[in-house]
Amino acid sequence: MAETFGQNLQERVRSLGPLCAGIDPSRSLLIATGRNDDVEGVEFASLALLEAVVGVAVAIKPQVAFFERFGASGFRVLERLIRDAHDADLLVIADAKRGDFEPTNEGYAQAWLSGESPLACDAVTVSPYVGFDALRPFFNVASQHQRGVFVLSATSNEEGRIIQQATTNDNDRVEDYVLASVAALNRTDAGLGNFGVVIGATRDAPRFDVTQLAGPILVPGLGAQGANADNVARLFDRCPAGSVLGSVSRGLVQNGWERRSLRDLAQRWRDDLTSALL
Amino acid sequence: MAETFGQNLQERVRSLGPLCAGIDPSRSLLIATGRNDDVEGVEFASLALLEAVVGVAVAIKPQVAFFERFGASGFRVLERLIRDAHDADLLVIADAKRGDFEPTNEGYAQAWLSGESPLACDAVTVSPYVGFDALRPFFNVASQHQRGVFVLSATSNEEGRIIQQATTNDNDRVEDYVLASVAALNRTDAGLGNFGVVIGATRDAPRFDVTQLAGPILVPGLGAQGANADNVARLFDRCPAGSVLGSVSRGLVQNGWERRSLRDLAQRWRDDLTSALL
Repeated sequence: MAETFGQNLQERVRSLGPLCAGIDPSRSLLIATGRNDDVEGVEFASLALLEAVVGVAVAIKPQVAFFERFGASGFRVLERLIRDAHDADLLVIADAKRGDFEPTNEGYAQAWLSGESPLACDAVTVSPYVGFDALRPFFNVASQHQRGVFVLSATSNEEGRIIQQATTNDNDRVEDYVLASVAALNRTDAGLGNFGVVIGATRDAPRFDVTQLAGPILVPGLGAQGANADNVARLFDRCPAGSVLGSVSRGLVQNGWERRSLRDLAQRWRDDLTSALL
Repeated sequence: MAETFGQNLQERVRSLGPLCAGIDPSRSLLIATGRNDDVEGVEFASLALLEAVVGVAVAIKPQVAFFERFGASGFRVLERLIRDAHDADLLVIADAKRGDFEPTNEGYAQAWLSGESPLACDAVTVSPYVGFDALRPFFNVASQHQRGVFVLSATSNEEGRIIQQATTNDNDRVEDYVLASVAALNRTDAGLGNFGVVIGATRDAPRFDVTQLAGPILVPGLGAQGANADNVARLFDRCPAGSVLGSVSRGLVQNGWERRSLRDLAQRWRDDLTSALL
């Protein structure tokens, strides 16, 4: 039987370390680093980051919004970034936060997880507001291809808590309902399954026992949002080794675009996360 | 002072009727109607529908997922559809359900609502899971250009209720918290403001009094999901005339792609919605 996305990711994290390089070519980043805010700037930033983290990060996480802002031209750059990352044997997690009702999620699952799509990645982030069960097309297409889905549970920002910590009819917090639902999906696989969650490093520990998730955990917001490797360890140190992936974006670019500086910062984050988690 | 998106929409609905034509060129629709499921099929379906509803619908609502599934090539078709619709003086509502944390929403707001973007529409649908207040960049960019934002409140599908009807710390349902938050944003404008909500026609009436929203209400799911113009009237008949927009997608294509049949069905829906609501 082919290995799941979770198992594939876990093996890679165990051998290389738990760093995911977030690629967020926003207007503010490009301007702050002296680049033009245009599609060429987006391409330059994306490829510079990718090239610098090969052999250091296990995955890149392009933030789809910052490509989408240039429409089809931006998506062409994203397609190239995905191809180049796969050629360099990095995993690609599309940070898309898609989520609609079931028939529409068929379309998004085709876009991000199906074999034929030029945007096909190894995993995609999805948002459960329209219903956790409405996400089924993502789960189905991911299972067919042994790809991954990361469902938003508790995001790193304060404003997220009003909805994420609301109480369901079953007396769960919404964020815990998401975790329990993902754990239930993973139950059919031995080891880590295809289905993961997104939990911000700045959040308190969820009430749901995350050691029971049986899937990967994506932890964004390291660096720029104030969290460090110790925050990640505090939340997840009892999780299976290799199941937690820390994502750093802006923190990699703080000294500009020079390859050596990007790579040094990536290595430092990778080493910090490795000591804290592995 | 320039009129808001809500005022612009309201004037158009009062003169033409409350029909929005959903454009959902999904794999299942293309196959069921004898078309190839490729980017040319998407383009054919989109332009056939657009052309048929000119002068009948006030707006089109392309479902972004079904363009995104072909990556950049699909987005080129969407860009053309948006241009052609604007040339025909229809409003365009991007059904994108985007929603992330605030810095990322800057990127999505640029994509769908800013002046320079090839994807710029008159309004966009957004999802509040990462935080209603995190949606601020959409609200800001919309206000600059007198464009609209429709925030998901209560979606038409059953699976949505677990999260949308969870109870916040203030003892509101999540769906009502969204409605109250949108109403608060509209309070600064006389008449309808730029900010609307999405409420499925199959849902029970929200607890929040929707007549106090002071913004447009987008009601998807007519036809294919079993709701009709009477369901819409039952929920919204006390709202200001012209503030409610019913969206029909699959229901327009039930007799195939012949222009006359598309237009007949659109007119029938428009007339039903007009009698029920205006």
